[in-house]
Amino acid sequence: MRVLGIDCGTEYTGYGIVDLVRDQCAANDRLVCICCGAIRVSPREPMPVRLSRISRALQDLIATHRPDRVAIEDVFYAVNVKSALKLGQVRGVAMLAAASAGLEVSEYAPLSIKSAVVGYGRAEKHQVQQMVARLLQLEEVPEPADAADALAIAICHLHTEATVQRQGGNLRTAAR
Amino acid sequence: MRVLGIDCGTEYTGYGIVDLVRDQCAANDRLVCICCGAIRVSPREPMPVRLSRISRALQDLIATHRPDRVAIEDVFYAVNVKSALKLGQVRGVAMLAAASAGLEVSEYAPLSIKSAVVGYGRAEKHQVQQMVARLLQLEEVPEPADAADALAIAICHLHTEATVQRQGGNLRTAAR
Repeated sequence: MRVLGIDCGTEYTGYGIVDLVRDQCAANDRLVCICCGAIRVSPREPMPVRLSRISRALQDLIATHRPDRVAIEDVFYAVNVKSALKLGQVRGVAMLAAASAGLEVSEYAPLSIKSAVVGYGRAEKHQVQQMVARLLQLEEVPEPADAADALAIAICHLHTEATVQRQGGNLRTAAR
Repeated sequence: MRVLGIDCGTEYTGYGIVDLVRDQCAANDRLVCICCGAIRVSPREPMPVRLSRISRALQDLIATHRPDRVAIEDVFYAVNVKSALKLGQVRGVAMLAAASAGLEVSEYAPLSIKSAVVGYGRAEKHQVQQMVARLLQLEEVPEPADAADALAIAICHLHTEATVQRQGGNLRTAAR
């Protein structure tokens, strides 16, 4: 199972692809980071141009790494309506890139992501990022922070799905 | 000059295409409605599927009618962050459809749209819709209301551009 986590932002959109693979020696599941980074767009460019760049970059990522699913953060808080609208625009483009490739999108609340990665829903951002590096056996915390956040979202999906499978259920697509 | 006005919504996304043509008899500019309607998506479907449908419908409209520009409403108000995010998602997809076709996007505040169509920024919604029918010489107010609202956005762009041209300036793309 390969998941593309996307951390949407109007300037930096983080991405991280994580595989859940069976470790033959340990007979255990292991998380492997395939790639991560951030799509940076200039706030000086018109929004449609920015969205176009983000869309193309995500389409390229999906075509190259062929994830099985896309996971994004569900947002309940924004500074104001204007910033929520702008963030929504990027989320719309990310969801569309997934849907155009026939991929389902799962959304996770920040609290669920922190719980899945650190085991504590009120963990600090840097704790989540350090735990991401540890879980993926990376020597350093991935940079920029948006890349680490995107990997955390992907890990959250894999943990959630593993839990659901153990319980014999099906994971519902949360994006409504 | 042909303009596609889009009135973004999470259930109904209105569209309206308006031409500004020179009337040979009256030696005057005249507004002509090319088409209008609304793209309806079911709130029961996952958001990525809904966005995919809206995107395809807008792409088809652009490919069929080849507008010179796209105009959308700039939003400053939403009930809450959650609804602003959802509306933003549709706006993002609309902007992307325009950018993918190489079209610039202009955004207009509700007050500007009302002023351009009715001549009064605090006009009621039904007054705007009736004026749209009158300006486009339609026998009835276009339905659904989202279609009339989209035509109003297109008319606002044409009026604004005509005013700017009379003043010898260039219209700035507002979508940032």
